[in-house]
Amino acid sequence: MRAEITREYVDQVEEAIARHDAPFILGTMAELYPADITTVLYELDEQESKYVMDLLPPEVGAQILSDLDYDIRTGFLQTFTSQEIARYVNLMNSDDAVDILNEQSVKTREEVLALLDNEEKAAAILDLLHYEEDCAGGLMAKELVKVNLNWRVRQCIEEIRRQAEEVQKIYTVYVVDNRDVLVGRVSVKTLLLAKDDTLVKDIYNPDVISIESFRDEGEVVTVMQKYALEAIPVVNIQKRLLGRITIDDVIDVMQEQAELSRQLMTGITENVEEDDSVFRISRSRLPWLIIGMIGGLLAAQFMGLFEDDIALLPAVALFVPLITATGGNVGIQSSSIIIQTLSSNTVIFDNFAQRLLKVLLVALLNAVIISGLVFTLTYLFRHELTLSIVVSAALFSVVMLASLMGTLTPLVLDRFGINPAVAAGPFITTANDLLGLAIYFSVAHMLYNL
Amino acid sequence: MRAEITREYVDQVEEAIARHDAPFILGTMAELYPADITTVLYELDEQESKYVMDLLPPEVGAQILSDLDYDIRTGFLQTFTSQEIARYVNLMNSDDAVDILNEQSVKTREEVLALLDNEEKAAAILDLLHYEEDCAGGLMAKELVKVNLNWRVRQCIEEIRRQAEEVQKIYTVYVVDNRDVLVGRVSVKTLLLAKDDTLVKDIYNPDVISIESFRDEGEVVTVMQKYALEAIPVVNIQKRLLGRITIDDVIDVMQEQAELSRQLMTGITENVEEDDSVFRISRSRLPWLIIGMIGGLLAAQFMGLFEDDIALLPAVALFVPLITATGGNVGIQSSSIIIQTLSSNTVIFDNFAQRLLKVLLVALLNAVIISGLVFTLTYLFRHELTLSIVVSAALFSVVMLASLMGTLTPLVLDRFGINPAVAAGPFITTANDLLGLAIYFSVAHMLYNL
Repeated sequence: MRAEITREYVDQVEEAIARHDAPFILGTMAELYPADITTVLYELDEQESKYVMDLLPPEVGAQILSDLDYDIRTGFLQTFTSQEIARYVNLMNSDDAVDILNEQSVKTREEVLALLDNEEKAAAILDLLHYEEDCAGGLMAKELVKVNLNWRVRQCIEEIRRQAEEVQKIYTVYVVDNRDVLVGRVSVKTLLLAKDDTLVKDIYNPDVISIESFRDEGEVVTVMQKYALEAIPVVNIQKRLLGRITIDDVIDVMQEQAELSRQLMTGITENVEEDDSVFRISRSRLPWLIIGMIGGLLAAQFMGLFEDDIALLPAVALFVPLITATGGNVGIQSSSIIIQTLSSNTVIFDNFAQRLLKVLLVALLNAVIISGLVFTLTYLFRHELTLSIVVSAALFSVVMLASLMGTLTPLVLDRFGINPAVAAGPFITTANDLLGLAIYFSVAHMLYNL
Repeated sequence: MRAEITREYVDQVEEAIARHDAPFILGTMAELYPADITTVLYELDEQESKYVMDLLPPEVGAQILSDLDYDIRTGFLQTFTSQEIARYVNLMNSDDAVDILNEQSVKTREEVLALLDNEEKAAAILDLLHYEEDCAGGLMAKELVKVNLNWRVRQCIEEIRRQAEEVQKIYTVYVVDNRDVLVGRVSVKTLLLAKDDTLVKDIYNPDVISIESFRDEGEVVTVMQKYALEAIPVVNIQKRLLGRITIDDVIDVMQEQAELSRQLMTGITENVEEDDSVFRISRSRLPWLIIGMIGGLLAAQFMGLFEDDIALLPAVALFVPLITATGGNVGIQSSSIIIQTLSSNTVIFDNFAQRLLKVLLVALLNAVIISGLVFTLTYLFRHELTLSIVVSAALFSVVMLASLMGTLTPLVLDRFGINPAVAAGPFITTANDLLGLAIYFSVAHMLYNL
């Protein structure tokens, strides 16, 4: 049932565009789902994509525009007139329409809004434009099916019939009172199975989980996942029903968050993909490379203080990579577990002192094992007792301190509202390199009595 | 509408358990959703949890058991008799029941299966036990609503009524032919709006996306996300309808995958959380710490070859952290973008040579900038031309080679069926440390004519 989009098909489409062969394009694309046509458009340039869009039925075009990556969409829509954008926006769910309008210039946005002939949609969009993008209000759509507590099943079915065209997926029918306050829900299944003249208040389920419009998108994800909801109603502080968020939007948020953490952890500062330009990929990487470079030069400056020691005892220099690598690994492992707790919104009832004690116990266990192994191996290979003691003692301290730093840094960043995943990346590695070297050379200087 | 579970409430529950105050527990928990009771159970020990479970209605208990983390559940269920487990399994969806049975010993599993009084459920579970856990068949539940192509709407509504108790959420009604082959779908909304004697074949939608039972769980995620599905029917190779996968299971898979990648990237080898034991957390970290340590000792051995050079020119040693850190950062950044492409199942139409050329262009751009900066800064601070040339030339080569390795390693791992996210972690850092040092000391040895 799934269409496989091949390189050959994309080539055929490009040739068909070149010879203006609309029947070929329409004929083959009628077999495809909009999401598959989107895949094809990613391979075409903007003029070619525009040619295809103009051929497709507007409903399919609206779906494709909703699906497109926002950075590609922004460029693509610059080849569209406001009239053309309005034609598609008329056919979109209000949440997708708002996403697209938010990407346009103020002028285009105003023009498109003025051109919408669906007044209900225009009002819904205007309302949604007030919310911040990363809160529940910014994720919700106005399209939903709601019925009044005092209606009969017959009226509900008429209402569903009336709204059926607007609302693509019903999921749950929301029940409100006369002041539009959300009081419960009723499933289509229940309505289907009930008698026509039954009152909603006699069959509805008052048990409904909702979320306030000002809540952060992360909270939306947590609540929907915890209670396995495929849609959640959004209410204002008076509990009036404002809209609803569906699971597909939440999955997009989850993916964006995972992507963002991964990029923070690997020291990439922009949301880039492999098919972005060389310049953009390069630019996304340079900031952390430069910070790492500055860290490396600071390390060189610091080790310069011990240049005479190194000349005298070059063996000390040999263990620098061991010290810095271990510090980096321990730091990243420690920060990882804290970031996981912070991002999963798990309730941790243990107090801070208990958590820290645990971190230190884990660090102690690993520090003893690692430095014990290093002492044994170094002594076996080099037969220098002082050197073996210096290296393993420094390593022990590095494991302990890197654990502490890896644990505290994400907590501190989180407290200051910075995404703690930053701490699992080059930041912690760079900091730990310097910390590790400071410990190592201090220990060496001390134990060798230099 | 959301209950906040507080430390105080957990303490009150523990005290109530101690004095066997069932009315307090039942009274307060009646206000909670099963997912919230699960949160409370995480804070109790196994005996306390068992006491609570025995009080709760079996439907709530079944929901809680389905929700519990599998590692906690496995231990918890050891305090249950086979009769008790069977009572809950009777009330679960077949996919959750199979997950739980798969965690039990063969003896318990057989006993529970023999004790199930719902024969239809037992047959469904037996069937599902045949599938691998990480394929579509292992994710699906047998519960779904299907109707025959030749039925009338009246029959369909009777069927939904009949199956209503078994199937918690309908989403879509699947349409099959007389041989049980999936031929389409029809929404409850359509059935609701159609006349009683309409034939299914006149109103159904033949456009249905399905997935074969042997497909990998990653493919299930990709397809459901691409087409924004909240449920997908699972078929065998003859297209017979076997079951369906719902979005909540797919979200769990997505989270597990994200979690796994994150742990691989941070060098943690077991699925641990902050509330696991000190021993378990320590054990999950040791393997990569030891591999990193071996890498560090190999680096020491290698640098030992140049011990005389270092004694003569200790300044060379000062830049070792710069070289290793830059190699590590570049390697992780490069592997990150490839892993992203691999994990998102994005179709990349460019051929391998084009992709590699792009990687090398990005690397060249960054290598020129970074080594240019380092040359300038080193010369400004130390006024040693040869040293500045050695450091910046080595850095240039390290950036180029680490980019290449960071790109090729995940591709090679993926080819051999190993999760490429391994390459974004300590693996690439350790390998790049050794590579960087080899380049650096070779360049130094050459340019200084040592």
